[in-house]
Amino acid sequence: MVSDSQESSGQGAAAATPLTGNAIIAQSGGPTAVINQTLVGAVKEMVKSKEIKAMYGALHGIEGAINEDFIDFRAESPRTLAQVAKTPSSALGSTRMKPTAEDCHRLFEVCQKRDVRYFFYIGGNDSAETAHIIATEAEDADYEMRIYHIPKTIDNDLLENDHTPGYGSAARFVALALMGDQLDNRSIPGVKVDVIMGRHAGFLTAASVLGQQRSDDGPHLVYLPERPFKPDQFCRDVQQVVDELGRCVVAVSEGICDEKGEPIYKSGEVDEHGNVQLSGSGALGDMLVNMLQTHLGENGRYRTDTFGYLQRSFPDIMSKPDSDEANQVGREAVIAATTGEHHTGSMTIKRVGTARTYAVSYEREPLEKIAGGTRTVPDEFINAEGNGVTEAFRDYALPLVGKLPRAGWLKAKRI
Amino acid sequence: MVSDSQESSGQGAAAATPLTGNAIIAQSGGPTAVINQTLVGAVKEMVKSKEIKAMYGALHGIEGAINEDFIDFRAESPRTLAQVAKTPSSALGSTRMKPTAEDCHRLFEVCQKRDVRYFFYIGGNDSAETAHIIATEAEDADYEMRIYHIPKTIDNDLLENDHTPGYGSAARFVALALMGDQLDNRSIPGVKVDVIMGRHAGFLTAASVLGQQRSDDGPHLVYLPERPFKPDQFCRDVQQVVDELGRCVVAVSEGICDEKGEPIYKSGEVDEHGNVQLSGSGALGDMLVNMLQTHLGENGRYRTDTFGYLQRSFPDIMSKPDSDEANQVGREAVIAATTGEHHTGSMTIKRVGTARTYAVSYEREPLEKIAGGTRTVPDEFINAEGNGVTEAFRDYALPLVGKLPRAGWLKAKRI
Repeated sequence: MVSDSQESSGQGAAAATPLTGNAIIAQSGGPTAVINQTLVGAVKEMVKSKEIKAMYGALHGIEGAINEDFIDFRAESPRTLAQVAKTPSSALGSTRMKPTAEDCHRLFEVCQKRDVRYFFYIGGNDSAETAHIIATEAEDADYEMRIYHIPKTIDNDLLENDHTPGYGSAARFVALALMGDQLDNRSIPGVKVDVIMGRHAGFLTAASVLGQQRSDDGPHLVYLPERPFKPDQFCRDVQQVVDELGRCVVAVSEGICDEKGEPIYKSGEVDEHGNVQLSGSGALGDMLVNMLQTHLGENGRYRTDTFGYLQRSFPDIMSKPDSDEANQVGREAVIAATTGEHHTGSMTIKRVGTARTYAVSYEREPLEKIAGGTRTVPDEFINAEGNGVTEAFRDYALPLVGKLPRAGWLKAKRI
Repeated sequence: MVSDSQESSGQGAAAATPLTGNAIIAQSGGPTAVINQTLVGAVKEMVKSKEIKAMYGALHGIEGAINEDFIDFRAESPRTLAQVAKTPSSALGSTRMKPTAEDCHRLFEVCQKRDVRYFFYIGGNDSAETAHIIATEAEDADYEMRIYHIPKTIDNDLLENDHTPGYGSAARFVALALMGDQLDNRSIPGVKVDVIMGRHAGFLTAASVLGQQRSDDGPHLVYLPERPFKPDQFCRDVQQVVDELGRCVVAVSEGICDEKGEPIYKSGEVDEHGNVQLSGSGALGDMLVNMLQTHLGENGRYRTDTFGYLQRSFPDIMSKPDSDEANQVGREAVIAATTGEHHTGSMTIKRVGTARTYAVSYEREPLEKIAGGTRTVPDEFINAEGNGVTEAFRDYALPLVGKLPRAGWLKAKRI
């Protein structure tokens, strides 16, 4: 299943020779519902390999690695690993630390001291960056080490990936939430604004449409950070839906910006108590609803929810394809590191099937192609008006979230 | 399964005689994830009864009944009904309208005109009140009609009920959300404040503890509206948990009040834009986090989420006992109305088993015992400090939410 795509820079190009030693594995960045699948997939593959001896799990990512705060994965039972795999959020703990060159140097010293010859870092583009710096350090010191980044992010914003582990489950949460919320809005009509995570990429917000069944199912409007957000247009759009349906459900990305690229809601604003208001709370939703009240009138029913951290760590509703792929991408990284021809890389997920015959392959890409970059929603997934998504997006995303439940509705005509 | 408890006032006390005619059924108030189970259970029981002919489903509660906006349930297929039963939110539409005596009079005229002899109203205590007014009206006019209120509310705040349909599923959502959120908080430590629905009753907020497995699992602090909320104590409580664990997860009810009974967050405050801030957004959470930052220091990681409307209409994770009971309570109301000795009443759920041998019975109570009253969390469910719940609460609530998933965690010692 593993194939190598384009050629890497120097440190990745050596032909594979058996390399025996110890391994460090760690998790970084925001947790996801399936990041432990990746951890456990990688650990199980390491157990099978002849090359890897001790398996050090670094606590809280690079921090644990630098401070030699490790657990020994060989002491974990298969039963524990199976249970951990199904559990959301990073079992090793995570970190937001972006290491300096000095930190990477210290980490590298730990690797030398403990004969670490394999380093696996599960995370987003910052984690790929970290792996890249360590790889450069190792090459400069002529220390042989296989260094692999393994992808995860609910934002789905890693370059070179068709999609990333964690996205499917978060997208499933968002799709389910909107299924319920638009039924709620049918039941008690009004205007509802749902604010969804994703930073500068709109993939997660776009997933709000995936549970739609009827032509008038919400969300009726979807605003992604890939298009400038124009308050006037927003108010007109909502007015038009309200005129037609008597209600309106809006999905909006937390990262929407104006035409100059400035965030619509700027964290750091000061509230009426003189306190700095936090991002991540309901402030953007409140601001948008206030805009609508000013434009559409105070009398309607206006509500807003900000889905917040529930999106990334909700148990019990993980997407099955996402869980399976998260596990497999961990395995593939270990296989590539132990038997592939490249000493370093980032394991990626490519799509090899169509919407109907969905299938993926796992391919190693050079670290520097993933490090630091951000992938955003492509134009063909966004409608011409910039207030909705296309069929092409549905075809892309539906296979990622697993089978969604179907809502029922009363069909008899009114008497 | 139906037994009658205490005696009702006049209109409910007549001995049962067969009464043939048409029926109106409607849904009112905030939707729940299982309110359609109740609707479908009642409809299926009506289909079986000899007494009930036409079944009018009133759209948007009492509004549809007054305006004769009905659908004919006999035109719905069993397949549609089965699918609707599993779908969250009120399939007939809901209303927040609290009818006046005049509205009830108009409704009563509709009943007379259409030979409606059975009126079923699914809702909370306001809906029981509505049913009670209509019953009085019918008695005054000497018009024979059987009038039953059927309970639902995620707030679990109806008198005479051990618990209410809708609570178990919303409580399951909250328990799952906190399971994920406290794992997230372990992974990236900090202070997290989760604001949970329930108005003046803390049952839903209390459910935040139900997924706990380890002694240091969050939520570490739980604040219910049944106890005055003291900001100083709150800050000291959080500081103490942070000192001990290096992190803290707090579950707090949207309805917390100070010692004078004034809400901690008063909707109607004006934000920095001169706009009135909405309740239901993240404002209470922001306020609490600002308190903590002022008291504990700006440097930590503080986050807040307000779960909002997702709590009441999330698909795919309904509690099985809640779904089953919601269906059955609808059936029991129809059985009581058609064959019981009382012409009016509110169907209630009583517990007849223990935590281990959980079982319920359905008993008719007089409408006026449910109408307008509010049940709150009893003292034995709240700890002495007023910042947590007791084992008695867990014993009470665990059977209501269905089987929860179990989290796994790494057990190996640090190297």
